[in-house]
Amino acid sequence: MISLEQIREVAIPSPSKIVFLVIDGLGGLPHPEIGKTELETAQTPNLDNLAREGICGLTEPVSPGITPGSAPAHLALFGYDPFRFAIGRGVLEALGIDFPLQQGDVVARGNFCTVNDKGIVVDRRAGRISTEKCAALCQQLGTIKLDEVELVVSPVKEHRFIVVFRGSNLHAELSDSDPHQIGMAPKQIVALSPKANKTAALANEFVTKARLTLANSHPANMVLLRGFSQRPHFPLMSEVYKLKPAAIAAYPMYRGLAKLVGMEVLDTGVSIEEEFATLSQRYTEYDFFFLHIKQADTAGEDGNFGRKTKIIEEVDAALPQLLKLNPEVIIVTGDHSTPALLKGHSWHPVPFLLRSPWCRPDDVAEFSERACAKGSLGRFPALDIMPLAMAHALKLVKFGA
Amino acid sequence: MISLEQIREVAIPSPSKIVFLVIDGLGGLPHPEIGKTELETAQTPNLDNLAREGICGLTEPVSPGITPGSAPAHLALFGYDPFRFAIGRGVLEALGIDFPLQQGDVVARGNFCTVNDKGIVVDRRAGRISTEKCAALCQQLGTIKLDEVELVVSPVKEHRFIVVFRGSNLHAELSDSDPHQIGMAPKQIVALSPKANKTAALANEFVTKARLTLANSHPANMVLLRGFSQRPHFPLMSEVYKLKPAAIAAYPMYRGLAKLVGMEVLDTGVSIEEEFATLSQRYTEYDFFFLHIKQADTAGEDGNFGRKTKIIEEVDAALPQLLKLNPEVIIVTGDHSTPALLKGHSWHPVPFLLRSPWCRPDDVAEFSERACAKGSLGRFPALDIMPLAMAHALKLVKFGA
Repeated sequence: MISLEQIREVAIPSPSKIVFLVIDGLGGLPHPEIGKTELETAQTPNLDNLAREGICGLTEPVSPGITPGSAPAHLALFGYDPFRFAIGRGVLEALGIDFPLQQGDVVARGNFCTVNDKGIVVDRRAGRISTEKCAALCQQLGTIKLDEVELVVSPVKEHRFIVVFRGSNLHAELSDSDPHQIGMAPKQIVALSPKANKTAALANEFVTKARLTLANSHPANMVLLRGFSQRPHFPLMSEVYKLKPAAIAAYPMYRGLAKLVGMEVLDTGVSIEEEFATLSQRYTEYDFFFLHIKQADTAGEDGNFGRKTKIIEEVDAALPQLLKLNPEVIIVTGDHSTPALLKGHSWHPVPFLLRSPWCRPDDVAEFSERACAKGSLGRFPALDIMPLAMAHALKLVKFGA
Repeated sequence: MISLEQIREVAIPSPSKIVFLVIDGLGGLPHPEIGKTELETAQTPNLDNLAREGICGLTEPVSPGITPGSAPAHLALFGYDPFRFAIGRGVLEALGIDFPLQQGDVVARGNFCTVNDKGIVVDRRAGRISTEKCAALCQQLGTIKLDEVELVVSPVKEHRFIVVFRGSNLHAELSDSDPHQIGMAPKQIVALSPKANKTAALANEFVTKARLTLANSHPANMVLLRGFSQRPHFPLMSEVYKLKPAAIAAYPMYRGLAKLVGMEVLDTGVSIEEEFATLSQRYTEYDFFFLHIKQADTAGEDGNFGRKTKIIEEVDAALPQLLKLNPEVIIVTGDHSTPALLKGHSWHPVPFLLRSPWCRPDDVAEFSERACAKGSLGRFPALDIMPLAMAHALKLVKFGA
């Protein structure tokens, strides 16, 4: 497979436009009673028409049989091999709350937990305290003073928070303090490379002071840290693909992922209608749009087959706004499957369609798992999507003479 | 493609069960008179039903166009990249006769051959002497004494045998003595790395003494050695996949391959019926079963279209025993194709089916080469089978957050 470095050699700027619509968790499994998936059940005349005019297939998000998290799945969609480009747990959590991470910040994911009087962890989630309680405790932890570094502690949800160490010469090669099971004391944080020695000392000092600060806050009387990481340096889409890319996404994590690869994140509303409206309003300013619809995944995770079906229908109803813009390339797919039947992400390949004046249409006349399985693209790696998008927008020149 | 190391990170133990039925040499070519392959000709109502309920495709054993031997083909089935995990010829031959190789043993494949009075090889197979004759000569060679090492010489079949050097500090980085053509003298065995110097000297000493021992045994008056090798260290399936795996195979080579990846090899009979009976009897003790049916390959190698067809029908008739157990995942495929028309292994991709409550069924309603070509899995590497099996048994957690 071609690398980003090789794509950079053949990518050229051009006025043609690509709209990449990602319906999160799009793929499903047949409902046991009706024998059809969510997408097969939904009435989707516009998507079916795009499938008829375009080419179809099923994408493998990261590797056959592997259920991806949202981060590796999206990196693959943007053309970044998730086995090569990794994002640490702490950074991911920071992206998820739109935290403005700076270059050099070291960030860890934290849990409030409960320890007994011997310091042994008895509840790794402190009884899942409320988000309000979490915010109050984070404010307390934020008052901790450490030499030479600035400390930011931000609540995420329930017992989850992030802690950010900001200063010079910090490194994230650190072990977790989280023992990942109850019945053990929190672990000493260890530098996994000599240059991280100073950061390890600071992190341990934070944990010690946090315990004192939280002494009377039972059940949230201790913290567990894991996934120390720094904002990674990824090649930018503008450099690799010569695109001017924009992201329209209602959820912070996806905006954060888009920022990591150099997309401009546009202000938008939370509804599907509002996201499509943003696309129309800002259409002239960019030549690549990542349009992310979260709600299908949420419905799938809730096991709500009917709601997921309905959301797919809502997207279909909003499509005419996009069709009116008539971009050279329209792609509709998901980052992974989230079958309502499984109430979570799954490994099943994801329906995919691409429409462009330059595609060689196949016989698919319907946008569904079963129809896409018979498309001319077959089952293929999600990493191939960006080169296909670029090609069909005539944005790639010949490779080799 | 995901590596074994990465799969190890996401594999979890669980009570669900996988039965992996391998019909050796399953794939075929159409009979010129009837226009159907062996599998297409066979009456297989149970396999057809599994294909209807499950997902289908065609596997590429090691790489498109490449005809695999049994060892690389089986390694791929078990998820071990055959370009990365190699088994020496000597070891393979030892596995084939169920020889109890010990860690550190150096083993070579041997031929009895004929040399003329100038020591030039005139027949590399000594006129294919009988297996009985071979056994008698091996007994003679076994009396050869070498300093510091124990020697075992075991007959294989006709002119073929193995020689095992057992002792401390032995190394297999040795060239062949076999010149691989007639008209040349056997070659000096050369150490390919300095640490193998001592082993090279011992091997040459064995060859010299063997010539003296065999001086009056024309046509089998000399030996040719090749494929010096040692039992490789492979990651175990229990570690990679967190499985408790068992093998049911009537032929030694397949039992040996299964042992190399850490399967427990179960006692069984040689008939298809007996192998399925062993599966039923031992079903509660393991969560992964490799069930190997050799006879289809043998019939294919013999060019016996009718017998191969009949054997496939026998497997189909035995299937209800397996269906009654109702494992979470049933896989039926072959290690490679052995078309009766070609009387040997071939490169053609191999019919594949997987049934599980969690598969997203396709439209395939028949188990055949042509029907599988239209399955939702398409044509895919055999290396993907284990991740797919694990996923459909819900034995893999999410990759990345």
